[in-house]
Amino acid sequence: MPSATDYLWFETKQKHELVRITDQVAAIVAKSRIREGLVLVSAMHITAGVWVNDDESGLFEDIWAWLEKLAPANPAYQHHRTGEDNGDAHLKALLVHHEVIVPITQGALDLGPWQQIFYAEFDGQRRKRVVVKALGE
Amino acid sequence: MPSATDYLWFETKQKHELVRITDQVAAIVAKSRIREGLVLVSAMHITAGVWVNDDESGLFEDIWAWLEKLAPANPAYQHHRTGEDNGDAHLKALLVHHEVIVPITQGALDLGPWQQIFYAEFDGQRRKRVVVKALGE
Amino acid sequence: MPSATDYLWFETKQKHELVRITDQVAAIVAKSRIREGLVLVSAMHITAGVWVNDDESGLFEDIWAWLEKLAPANPAYQHHRTGEDNGDAHLKALLVHHEVIVPITQGALDLGPWQQIFYAEFDGQRRKRVVVKALGE
Repeated sequence: MPSATDYLWFETKQKHELVRITDQVAAIVAKSRIREGLVLVSAMHITAGVWVNDDESGLFEDIWAWLEKLAPANPAYQHHRTGEDNGDAHLKALLVHHEVIVPITQGALDLGPWQQIFYAEFDGQRRKRVVVKALGE
Repeated sequence: MPSATDYLWFETKQKHELVRITDQVAAIVAKSRIREGLVLVSAMHITAGVWVNDDESGLFEDIWAWLEKLAPANPAYQHHRTGEDNGDAHLKALLVHHEVIVPITQGALDLGPWQQIFYAEFDGQRRKRVVVKALGE
Repeated sequence: MPSATDYLWFETKQKHELVRITDQVAAIVAKSRIREGLVLVSAMHITAGVWVNDDESGLFEDIWAWLEKLAPANPAYQHHRTGEDNGDAHLKALLVHHEVIVPITQGALDLGPWQQIFYAEFDGQRRKRVVVKALGE
């Protein structure tokens, strides 16, 4: 059974950033020659997320405001006793999840018309990775 | 390696609705003849979710009230500049996630005794799809 | 195509508990002899979660406080009409999700340097299961 593995690297300029990665994932799937299967897209860091949603700038503003409300940056986290200041980034990652699985059908990503894959950085300005692993036939 | 792909269609009568889909997913798995594997159940829309939880009507009321509290319908979303009024539905979908993976063991869904698969509609009254993709041996 | 299935059992001493299970999942993957693939780690109960995040005790305190804030234990849940008192545990499980998929690369879990797999118990002190299903080549 064929499989394919690749890694996407990110070093965002901002602490918070959203990067659309649908095209990179589609290219890995095309190269794999898998016709029917599943592709996992999973952040390898604990302060980043991966989601599928709409590519609309107003919605991005809503999502960031909403994440800040539900998991606020806050100097009082116990995690900050370690010297880190990114407790909120861990909670944001738990909230939105760090990975998605996309089906592969007839050799392509089987996404709905408005579905795009995003990498969400909650504590950026350093090098981070996403693993892309396709499995199928 | 065998795979199977199918699509479930929904057009809910209400804006918010919860539809139990365990039996439809089980039927697709049975037809696939996959004995050991994984089945992805994934909404193809960005204002719907898929989850596994209890089939209990009191809990349903609790979940809707809780989702409304954490991601309220609210005319002030930036996303509404596009003419849409479903900003809350996008946030609800991010919160509960749009997909689950269920293991297939000995040809059947390998769920716990209380686990049921649900399609959660956050912005209904139009045709929407869920992709079901099984992969295994 | 090889697959492997195993079950981890838990009976936590506390109602709320976090159990690191990376080593158990790694052992199941090693035994499976799968070199490239995916492994699903999924709670079979609706009041427990599985996540990947940092193994840091201050963060654990932050996560529990945060979950209690977003999905508080509360005698007023409608679900409690059934005689249960664990409505909050269902909501916490929806919030953090009940499963993760980890890629298998060159025969081992392909996790980032800080990523650990955890079983999160929200309504413990009884026997519960997690299914581990690996699929690959």
